Amino acid sequence: MDTVLQSLADPSDPALIRRLRGLDETGFPVDVDTVEEKPVTLFVNDQEIVTMMTILDRPEDLAIGYLLNQGLLGPEDVIEGIEFDADLSVVVVRTQDPFENRTKLDKKTLTSGCSGGTSFGNFLENIESVRLDPTVFRVSWLYGALSNIKAIPTLYASAGAIHGCALVNRQDPVIYVEDVGRHNAIDKIAGWMYRNSFRSSEAFLYTTGRLTSEMVIKAIRMGLPTLVSRSGFTAWGVELARASGLLLLGRCRGRRFIALSGESRIYFDVNPGFLSSRSAFGKMDDSDDK
Amino acid sequence: MDTVLQSLADPSDPALIRRLRGLDETGFPVDVDTVEEKPVTLFVNDQEIVTMMTILDRPEDLAIGYLLNQGLLGPEDVIEGIEFDADLSVVVVRTQDPFENRTKLDKKTLTSGCSGGTSFGNFLENIESVRLDPTVFRVSWLYGALSNIKAIPTLYASAGAIHGCALVNRQDPVIYVEDVGRHNAIDKIAGWMYRNSFRSSEAFLYTTGRLTSEMVIKAIRMGLPTLVSRSGFTAWGVELARASGLLLLGRCRGRRFIALSGESRIYFDVNPGFLSSRSAFGKMDDSDDK
Repeated sequence: MDTVLQSLADPSDPALIRRLRGLDETGFPVDVDTVEEKPVTLFVNDQEIVTMMTILDRPEDLAIGYLLNQGLLGPEDVIEGIEFDADLSVVVVRTQDPFENRTKLDKKTLTSGCSGGTSFGNFLENIESVRLDPTVFRVSWLYGALSNIKAIPTLYASAGAIHGCALVNRQDPVIYVEDVGRHNAIDKIAGWMYRNSFRSSEAFLYTTGRLTSEMVIKAIRMGLPTLVSRSGFTAWGVELARASGLLLLGRCRGRRFIALSGESRIYFDVNPGFLSSRSAFGKMDDSDDK
Repeated sequence: MDTVLQSLADPSDPALIRRLRGLDETGFPVDVDTVEEKPVTLFVNDQEIVTMMTILDRPEDLAIGYLLNQGLLGPEDVIEGIEFDADLSVVVVRTQDPFENRTKLDKKTLTSGCSGGTSFGNFLENIESVRLDPTVFRVSWLYGALSNIKAIPTLYASAGAIHGCALVNRQDPVIYVEDVGRHNAIDKIAGWMYRNSFRSSEAFLYTTGRLTSEMVIKAIRMGLPTLVSRSGFTAWGVELARASGLLLLGRCRGRRFIALSGESRIYFDVNPGFLSSRSAFGKMDDSDDK
């Protein structure tokens, strides 16, 4: 695995997991590790934007990624600082220019993102004019990446009830993030990419969550030409992906996958002898079991 | 199975599923059924509240349930009418009394609900003072219900990428709803309960989604003393459940389950000989496979 791999959430961090006592089906006491879920309120300058439920491991990345993925901040904006106050559970993003007049925060859209996808204002704006880089995507990258991702220690393995998301360069996971919301996980990756000036035309995004419109829009905003999931598709997610040239691979389990958008960009460089005759028609969604 | 069962989403309804052509991992063309995901905008009187992504099978139930579960409408409110305009994809709820002054719509909270849980205003208010009815819950109801739910034809079985939620009376599913968002599914049940004046002290809620704070709060608002899931827990979800006396059963698969709140209400009326020695420690979350 590439040495640049970072798992942003540390599964051994006691702030992320709480052990709780209960009963199992035989009536015996059991101790169960559960993932923490905490509110953090995002401000831009002195304007309150939203309160998010998160594992709160990377509030700065989450804040920036959320603003970028919602279209509330763009490449032209200068961010002067980000402050996180753990006591108040508040994260403040400071911009050089005034923020108020560009937003349409009164317009609220509840998206299909697991764990609280919500968008305000211009979430959908400009998405339909985007044409992503038509790079080739090798099937060998996918198989290598899935195998590498499996080896990453995760909060999920310790406590379940959490989604994972990886930024992958060819077959190498660069970072792996987790959150109670799959939209938070992808936003944290967007924030990390921005703050680390990450660029690669061969990068793609892997998520354990479903390929809904919200997830597709976020990937397009992040300029990533390929979005991969172990879960299934919604029709509108596919429609948006097709309009922008996003390669959309779903139902990825073992060697199986289905591509419903951008198929012409796939380079089948793996010996088909590896492949069974069954294709990826199993029903699977948002399951985080690895 | 009880004859009152209704599956609110009809899996044979062509408006709910779209067949799309793509490629599988062998490079061969495949046709895949995908679930529809559509925006609907909710108004109360002339005030725009939110736009929701939904399968759009029951906009009226979704609208009423959303407003009730957010605490934006209460038992004291008189609803004079609900209108859905399919062309505009708008649902309007008309109240007898003015609505504006009671809302705090400027406060937005992104919850951990799958597929876009968002709450405004007083979502959390009054929740902590609720004490639910401490009714006995029989393990035999759970096993009966899970077996009955398995037999229900679902959109999930046809297209995947969707959450299910059932209102169950003892072991009998009363209604089964599906949506791209698990928060939408539970809201539709809340709306259906209100519109059908459903009451039962032995009813419980089953969801395929995780037991996050959002799902727990909704169950409490609905006055249901028991919430059951095949998926896992978040720590805050458990905390809220314990404060209100909600019986919270998670990781329900086959005969296995874990109770992390309200355990004293469980009546173990099933012969333990049925039970294997393994308890419900498998990692499982938001997986909709049945």
